Amino acid sequence: MGAAILSGLLTEILIPVAAVVGIAFALVQWLLVSKVTLSPEKPAGSRDGISDYLIEEEEGLNDHNVVVKCAEIQSAISEGATSFLFTEYQYVGIFMVAFAVLIFLFLGSVEGFSTKAQPCTYSKDKYCKPALANAGFSTISFLLGAITSLVSGFLGMKIATYANARTTLEARKGVGKAFITAFRSGAVMGFLLAANGLLVLYIAINLFKLYYGDDWEGLFESITGYGLGGSSMALFGRVGGGIYTKAADVGADLVGKVERNIPEDDPRNPAVIADNVGDNVGDIAGMGSDLFGSYAESSCAALVVASISSFGVNHDFTAMCYPLLISSIGIIVCLITTLFATDFCEIKVVKEIEPALKRQLIISTALMTIGIAIISWIALPSTFTIFSFGEQKKVKNWELFFCVAIGLWAGLVIGFVTEYFTSNAYSPVQDVADSCRTGAATNVIFGLALGYKSVIIPIFAIAVSIFVSFSLAAMYGIAVAALGMLSTIATGLAIDAYGPISDNAGGIAEMAGMSHRIRERTDALDAAGNTTAAIGKGFAIGSAALVSLALFGAFVSRAAISTVDVLTPKVFIGLIVGAMLPYWFSAMTMKSVGSAALKMVEEVRRQFNTIPGIMEGTARPDYATCVKISTDASIKEMIPPGALVMLTPLIVGTFFGVETLSGVLAGSLVSGVQIAISASNTGGAWDNAKKYIEAGASEHARSLGPKGSDPHKAAVIGDTIGDPLKDTSGPSLNILIKLMAVESLVFAPFFATHGGLLFKIF
Amino acid sequence: MGAAILSGLLTEILIPVAAVVGIAFALVQWLLVSKVTLSPEKPAGSRDGISDYLIEEEEGLNDHNVVVKCAEIQSAISEGATSFLFTEYQYVGIFMVAFAVLIFLFLGSVEGFSTKAQPCTYSKDKYCKPALANAGFSTISFLLGAITSLVSGFLGMKIATYANARTTLEARKGVGKAFITAFRSGAVMGFLLAANGLLVLYIAINLFKLYYGDDWEGLFESITGYGLGGSSMALFGRVGGGIYTKAADVGADLVGKVERNIPEDDPRNPAVIADNVGDNVGDIAGMGSDLFGSYAESSCAALVVASISSFGVNHDFTAMCYPLLISSIGIIVCLITTLFATDFCEIKVVKEIEPALKRQLIISTALMTIGIAIISWIALPSTFTIFSFGEQKKVKNWELFFCVAIGLWAGLVIGFVTEYFTSNAYSPVQDVADSCRTGAATNVIFGLALGYKSVIIPIFAIAVSIFVSFSLAAMYGIAVAALGMLSTIATGLAIDAYGPISDNAGGIAEMAGMSHRIRERTDALDAAGNTTAAIGKGFAIGSAALVSLALFGAFVSRAAISTVDVLTPKVFIGLIVGAMLPYWFSAMTMKSVGSAALKMVEEVRRQFNTIPGIMEGTARPDYATCVKISTDASIKEMIPPGALVMLTPLIVGTFFGVETLSGVLAGSLVSGVQIAISASNTGGAWDNAKKYIEAGASEHARSLGPKGSDPHKAAVIGDTIGDPLKDTSGPSLNILIKLMAVESLVFAPFFATHGGLLFKIF
Repeated sequence: MGAAILSGLLTEILIPVAAVVGIAFALVQWLLVSKVTLSPEKPAGSRDGISDYLIEEEEGLNDHNVVVKCAEIQSAISEGATSFLFTEYQYVGIFMVAFAVLIFLFLGSVEGFSTKAQPCTYSKDKYCKPALANAGFSTISFLLGAITSLVSGFLGMKIATYANARTTLEARKGVGKAFITAFRSGAVMGFLLAANGLLVLYIAINLFKLYYGDDWEGLFESITGYGLGGSSMALFGRVGGGIYTKAADVGADLVGKVERNIPEDDPRNPAVIADNVGDNVGDIAGMGSDLFGSYAESSCAALVVASISSFGVNHDFTAMCYPLLISSIGIIVCLITTLFATDFCEIKVVKEIEPALKRQLIISTALMTIGIAIISWIALPSTFTIFSFGEQKKVKNWELFFCVAIGLWAGLVIGFVTEYFTSNAYSPVQDVADSCRTGAATNVIFGLALGYKSVIIPIFAIAVSIFVSFSLAAMYGIAVAALGMLSTIATGLAIDAYGPISDNAGGIAEMAGMSHRIRERTDALDAAGNTTAAIGKGFAIGSAALVSLALFGAFVSRAAISTVDVLTPKVFIGLIVGAMLPYWFSAMTMKSVGSAALKMVEEVRRQFNTIPGIMEGTARPDYATCVKISTDASIKEMIPPGALVMLTPLIVGTFFGVETLSGVLAGSLVSGVQIAISASNTGGAWDNAKKYIEAGASEHARSLGPKGSDPHKAAVIGDTIGDPLKDTSGPSLNILIKLMAVESLVFAPFFATHGGLLFKIF
Repeated sequence: MGAAILSGLLTEILIPVAAVVGIAFALVQWLLVSKVTLSPEKPAGSRDGISDYLIEEEEGLNDHNVVVKCAEIQSAISEGATSFLFTEYQYVGIFMVAFAVLIFLFLGSVEGFSTKAQPCTYSKDKYCKPALANAGFSTISFLLGAITSLVSGFLGMKIATYANARTTLEARKGVGKAFITAFRSGAVMGFLLAANGLLVLYIAINLFKLYYGDDWEGLFESITGYGLGGSSMALFGRVGGGIYTKAADVGADLVGKVERNIPEDDPRNPAVIADNVGDNVGDIAGMGSDLFGSYAESSCAALVVASISSFGVNHDFTAMCYPLLISSIGIIVCLITTLFATDFCEIKVVKEIEPALKRQLIISTALMTIGIAIISWIALPSTFTIFSFGEQKKVKNWELFFCVAIGLWAGLVIGFVTEYFTSNAYSPVQDVADSCRTGAATNVIFGLALGYKSVIIPIFAIAVSIFVSFSLAAMYGIAVAALGMLSTIATGLAIDAYGPISDNAGGIAEMAGMSHRIRERTDALDAAGNTTAAIGKGFAIGSAALVSLALFGAFVSRAAISTVDVLTPKVFIGLIVGAMLPYWFSAMTMKSVGSAALKMVEEVRRQFNTIPGIMEGTARPDYATCVKISTDASIKEMIPPGALVMLTPLIVGTFFGVETLSGVLAGSLVSGVQIAISASNTGGAWDNAKKYIEAGASEHARSLGPKGSDPHKAAVIGDTIGDPLKDTSGPSLNILIKLMAVESLVFAPFFATHGGLLFKIF
């Protein structure tokens, strides 16, 4: 049980330094993006200067008006997104305060609001801080997590809307330039989020320690609130943003593309601004909050288990900070990886985009493996014990390295499988495209089958990681495996955010009336973006599965249950009802998107029918009304699914007790993972099948096209169906499973003392 | 622990008498159906004689040719179905023999093929028959179950193809006459199946007893093979038949309805005979085997638990036969119930069809409650003990009554919820129809959301039944709850089989060129049939959930595991992989339907393009080639999903051991139930949304129609997507979960001794 090589002081320095380096790197990237000017006076704004040709110049189209128009559209999108987020945050803010009060009251009531020190939960011979203090600090860390999550989402949206028009303008110079601009902007978001999350958590731990002193059990129990805060905001961000973006998207497509035969993102379509705003509030802000939540939760899960293991019991600060050290190394590794995309290699043709993004994943994973090995070697004692359901299990440092590494590599496997099933470079999507020959019905059947099939390997990857990490280091192993999968979060987010930015860039090009060739370039960027978005969702769901299981394990330990036996009625009914919850939740969110889209369709039709000159482009459509419809619908519709997720653990825990709640958590986890993966991949595949036909890059693809052909129309229907699946219900599900688990963990002390009212009465 | 009121001798008499009465009743119904003659010499053939008007007579259409044509089409359908089933049975027969050998070898190897008596598993102080004997008798009962299952399916198909043209001819006299013919034919199948299943099981028990004598533990362990045999045949029946019917249906619709704008079942469509054959081999034969499997399994699960409880230990034959007595009473109750539909009430208008079918469910449930109460009172001792994971739990006879009754009533609740979500008389389907205004995409989104939503209440109903019956009488309680849900199987099957018969009747009317008004009548019968088919699937899946859990419990007892703790890595990976299996399976079956349908589309197109005069009706299409395509595709495509289901328990049990297998069973159960319910209901809702628009019975419906309008086209797309969901992948899933559970139970002795190779090596 020797001490770690890395001293406590060095740990204290290393973590904040890594965080600050991450933030600084993000700022540098932002600076580079900002060099692309949006003013018509200096149209080139490139480092290479004179050597760049602009397509417009070639085609004699270079019109300063185009640049001005881009700037205008960008500011319209940015304003719309900012205004929506502020509206959303008002509602969410009320929830945040109310829930904070709830946390304080529930947790404070555990020992009847007593201010006396109490025997510790795990070491009964010691005295710990009173439950009231834990209630207070849990509330504070909940608020901290919630605010950090909102700020992460907001900053992501800001940089995305800052970058989209710039990407469009750079697309005039070539696909490589546009790619770098979009990718850098994604990196700004990735690094800001990863570094901020780490920094805030680190500062909170250090401040809380001033009060808690040696009571690390209480300290890290309170810190768990940080994860709950992050995830609960993510839920509203994902659901609200998801409904917003898809209501606008589906509404715009159904009238514009299907009924009026005008292209996507045509400025004559009244819903077009709402659609572009949606990308930024849903895919960017929502996803940012989501991954921040995963990151915060896996850190908290690892910390809370560590605090009752030998790290915490022996007060070994460096080993205790192992999860934070992994994240710190992750930032450095991602920084190097990013340089490969932006500086070491250059993209010249469209075909290189997807391989470049894939390379990012491989490089970061390979480098990170080395990073983890080093950290495991210097930050951990060679042997230590990990708490495992009432026992202390002996673990060696290289075993813990394996846990983190297997999570990391499982993430890569999930990423590759997702790419295979959603990229139009491979046969699955091409088969789906081919099935459009016989119409929309076969397209939908093949697409659903593809999504179901795409679940198989990721689940085996998750199962193997769980088995290995669980066997090696119990619940702590799972928590660090999740952290391993998320350790390259900065790169993951960069390639994920890159997608919606490119999507917006394409929209702006169309709206600004730029050349068709520019649109082709942004479309190619966007097609790769669909795949990376699916990969990002794969990571999110894979890590969510591991995180939830780790949180679930921590919950079971905290609630002092010795086994969760499926063959007891209390557990089994929880299991089957838990497995049902993702369906209930999906029904709500899909119906919401459907109804909101119907309203949007009516409004868009109304405008087309009543505003004269709109189809000729002489009259300006009323964009604001469409923005308002999306805003109102998403705010109103996010409440019921949000309530379902937030209230289920409270109701089940309070009335049915911790055993049933364990069943619910396990059931929703194993069932939700499958629907989330299949929904995301089905949606991504349909979108890319459509793009495959549109791009017509192969003999086969051309035989299905062109735009407007029957197979293409069938593909558009599939794409529209996929929208709510891949951007609303699918990605929200991973928050559902994580959030219920972390909420159960935070409220575990309450449930353990006062839970199970119904069974106590009967 | 007093003895039961009913003596052993009376029990011995009551059960076979009930079975024989059931068979006799079925024959009477068949006789009544056969009075409708298919020869043109005597066109009326009704009991009321002269008072009946035929629509054709009214319209001056009465042409003896029509009757001749009906008879011709019927024999074509019947021949096609018979020939397919024989082809299927050849392949399935090979599997049956191979699997029988496997069972014998695996189970015989448990004690190294020793012929010496061994200490019993549960009562170590007694001696039981050797494992080799159990292996032999398990193999025999497997074969018995398999053959009974095949015979049930075959007889069902025979009566259905016997009845369809007769229903068409009766439709000329009125909707009531047609209804009674279709319903009587359904009843023939229902009663034959229920009575046969009971009789064979009863005879097998009595014959086996000649050898086993007092060793009831071994006797009922061997009998479990009966359930395995029934269910494994059901799997191939459901999957093979499901692929057959939907390949033909989707193929026929895509070219005929969508491309060529000819009506459904138009004789010019080359796939039309294959489509009608499919209804009989998939929806009739497949479903018959399926429900027979459920019935056999729930009986076996109850018997095997009873044999190690006080019933078996004290050799109380009457109490031991309690599950069979429930089924016996069920036959009598259903007999009375049927009379309400066929004799006591008469249907005069279309609107009365659905209420009449619903009344069947209510009457049978109410009467059965009384029946169960009586049987529980006379056949059970007032107090007894039930084996519950190593302990004997005290149970009172009225508690067991509650277990059966709650299963029965939960079935009714599931039935009503299913009706609400799939009948076009209520708002959910009408909303889906309404969403067709904005095209196929919103139709699909709303339909999927409807299916997800329809899961909620059935799951709560299942959860409550599980909780109550488990709490009252452990695993035995669950098994008899499942039996309660299936106790009215004869009525359930009657109303279920009625649907495809009406569907076929409509097809025959169309093909024989009968009046439009006749088609309207059969369409109304068919619309109600869609709802009842969904209800039937609801029963099948609800009972499957309970049965699987009971089998799972029996497996755990037999495999001598004390707990199935979710928080052990072995169990958890089983759980998450198990939850994935239904997706894998669905991906396979849906893809199979899709590819087979593509082939069918190409063939139908080829015929339309190359056979001159086919569209004018002057040339006869080549029906046989389409029948062959469906046959070949379904035989070839049923093997991979079949292998997945059959091999998973063997592989997991042998290599990973009983804990992981327990996880797989629990995971596939809780996840599969949800997909099965949502897939069935989504498909049913889409089908009825389409019928709602076509029928145009309300102001709202007319605003969406007529046939050929854009909303109608969107509805047709939804209907086509729903076909594989509701008739192939959805209903096969309940077999997946049952079959894996019963297979695990049969092989439990082997897994317990030789299982878990991988973990033993490492």
